[in-house]
Amino acid sequence: MDSVAVIGASMTQFGQRDAWIRELLAEAGQACLDDAGVSPDAIEHLYVSNMASGEFEGQTGVPNALAHDLSALPAYTARIDQTSSSGGAGIYAAWQSVASGASDMTLLVGGEKMTHRTTAEATDVIASLTHPVEYKHGVTLPSFAGLTARLYLDTYDAPRESLGKVAVKNHKNGVDNPHAQFRKEVDLDTVLDSPIVADPLRLYDFCPITDGSAALMFCPESVAREYTDEYVVVSGIGGATDTHVVHERADPTTMGGVVNSSEIAYEMADLEPDDIDVAELHDMFTILEFLQSEDLGFFEKGEGWKAVEDGVTDRDGDLPINTSGGLKSKGHPLGASGVAQAYEIYAQLMGEAGDRQVDAETGLACNVGGFGNCVTTTIMEARR
Amino acid sequence: MDSVAVIGASMTQFGQRDAWIRELLAEAGQACLDDAGVSPDAIEHLYVSNMASGEFEGQTGVPNALAHDLSALPAYTARIDQTSSSGGAGIYAAWQSVASGASDMTLLVGGEKMTHRTTAEATDVIASLTHPVEYKHGVTLPSFAGLTARLYLDTYDAPRESLGKVAVKNHKNGVDNPHAQFRKEVDLDTVLDSPIVADPLRLYDFCPITDGSAALMFCPESVAREYTDEYVVVSGIGGATDTHVVHERADPTTMGGVVNSSEIAYEMADLEPDDIDVAELHDMFTILEFLQSEDLGFFEKGEGWKAVEDGVTDRDGDLPINTSGGLKSKGHPLGASGVAQAYEIYAQLMGEAGDRQVDAETGLACNVGGFGNCVTTTIMEARR
Repeated sequence: MDSVAVIGASMTQFGQRDAWIRELLAEAGQACLDDAGVSPDAIEHLYVSNMASGEFEGQTGVPNALAHDLSALPAYTARIDQTSSSGGAGIYAAWQSVASGASDMTLLVGGEKMTHRTTAEATDVIASLTHPVEYKHGVTLPSFAGLTARLYLDTYDAPRESLGKVAVKNHKNGVDNPHAQFRKEVDLDTVLDSPIVADPLRLYDFCPITDGSAALMFCPESVAREYTDEYVVVSGIGGATDTHVVHERADPTTMGGVVNSSEIAYEMADLEPDDIDVAELHDMFTILEFLQSEDLGFFEKGEGWKAVEDGVTDRDGDLPINTSGGLKSKGHPLGASGVAQAYEIYAQLMGEAGDRQVDAETGLACNVGGFGNCVTTTIMEARR
Repeated sequence: MDSVAVIGASMTQFGQRDAWIRELLAEAGQACLDDAGVSPDAIEHLYVSNMASGEFEGQTGVPNALAHDLSALPAYTARIDQTSSSGGAGIYAAWQSVASGASDMTLLVGGEKMTHRTTAEATDVIASLTHPVEYKHGVTLPSFAGLTARLYLDTYDAPRESLGKVAVKNHKNGVDNPHAQFRKEVDLDTVLDSPIVADPLRLYDFCPITDGSAALMFCPESVAREYTDEYVVVSGIGGATDTHVVHERADPTTMGGVVNSSEIAYEMADLEPDDIDVAELHDMFTILEFLQSEDLGFFEKGEGWKAVEDGVTDRDGDLPINTSGGLKSKGHPLGASGVAQAYEIYAQLMGEAGDRQVDAETGLACNVGGFGNCVTTTIMEARR
């Protein structure tokens, strides 16, 4: 079968944006058309990754608005929502549209507009994804993160400082990402002395509330070659759920959705964890980078923290993780985040990552919905 | 390529239901598992068609809840939203998941819970799909329907009574549908004397606000044969958009999304409009049944109303339309409606439609989002 190629990518400035969801999506969508050199009338399918434009902004039907704004009519459109992994789910939808033969040119645009709402309002929208019983008892995703971090530190004898070093590393990477929300280094003391949010996690263990959008252009590899000699292929992709009720998980320090989705992706790509050169993980909370780096098979269970301590995941380490700055410093506009992860991998594989550039032929993006309730893992490889 | 088969289908009672969205989805999902004879652990992908559980109920993440409630972990899940054509978009997503090889068993469940909100609140959520400029000026979908109906009657010299006869026909069909919201006949005088909503359309020209859910089970035809000797295949499917701003359409009595999506579906199925034996059209407003019956190529432009007058689309006519009772009498729980249309076609092709049964080997479902902003057309054929 013809592989599914990515021939263009874009992302907007992430942060506090004076633009509504429609404008953000159109900005990334147009930039992706330009980057790919594709005319809007070539688009056959157009997917929008977005969790909650209706709740955040009272605006629904955004895929139709985007088709209109990009002059992409009569392209088929739909919105893909998988909470904070909507972007990864959008990648899967776009991949399927091409792999099934339904579309020879699919544009995926992910986006979210959040900062016009208070943090409490935004957190409440996000918390609506939890099980109603958990929600009723006031359990939010940050509180799950605190409980999980404590369990991880206790179980694997990891120092509190190791979590802080994730934030330090990712902020350092974000300095070189022109699209990142926070382009400033933080030192370990600043992280460890920041206000407690969910003990033992503090403010700098959490990603911010963000506005932003990102886009990718997919087509069959045979079509890609009509546009360019250098592109990326999606060589493996998989998705999986874990329990909707977090306390039903046998071991809350293992993310079943990461394990299962990556197994599917590795098998499809015929690759092993060792073959991955660069990865973007879903560091919505610092603790999640440890869990995913282990559950993806990069490190043994309980040893992810050591890799960070030893600099293995630094930009000049053996396996750079979150060269973009991660959700932590780049920001986390829900529906955009998974697409922006793939944007970073695409940029790294294409040699377009500027000051963040690492040496990589194969990259992986892991996008997590809820507290691991659903996960999409995507493996991409450079083709020249 | 292996065709995509449908090996099971279900729908819940439509109407005012004392159940939340999670419960409605689980009810239809479990019934579909039972109908198909498929074990929940065989499900690889699980899609939920739903427009607005967040806005209606403050509940998001419903695909993860459903995977949990059906014991379908670790099946991959996502929510597909294309406003009132979310069901058709879900069918397209499920079809793609199988046709791409990503899943060998995909369950699609569509649903919406609406009646706990006032009609004004529900209408406002639906109106949020319109262009912001239209929304700001108070244009709702019913008002578009009124304007379009007046234009159609004037342009094609059709009598007002012909619109009323759509309601009379579909209510008559709904009497024999045990799942329909309204199982009562209405006479033409009742329709024509009902309160004006958007002149010339009156209360009985509109579908109701509804709670309900419906489900379909998809797999490759080779897998279908392991479960059953009699099933249905999706032989053609296509989707297309029209302008987001309705007044930009060259001819508002033509639904471009219907024309374009059906062209794709007919070509894929290698069929002509004349080959269709039974059809479910999106009669959210009576006028829409005329437009779709013409834009799908069943009748010449401006002649759809004559087909209704002449009884061609009656259950014993040459081309029965909306044997289920249509959205008009069956009800319109947004995310469920497109799935329930395909349920009806499935039941007709399988000979399981009871008192509504017609003689049919090939059926078509046309699901419309917004005021034709996006449309999905699905063609299904019986295999025995």
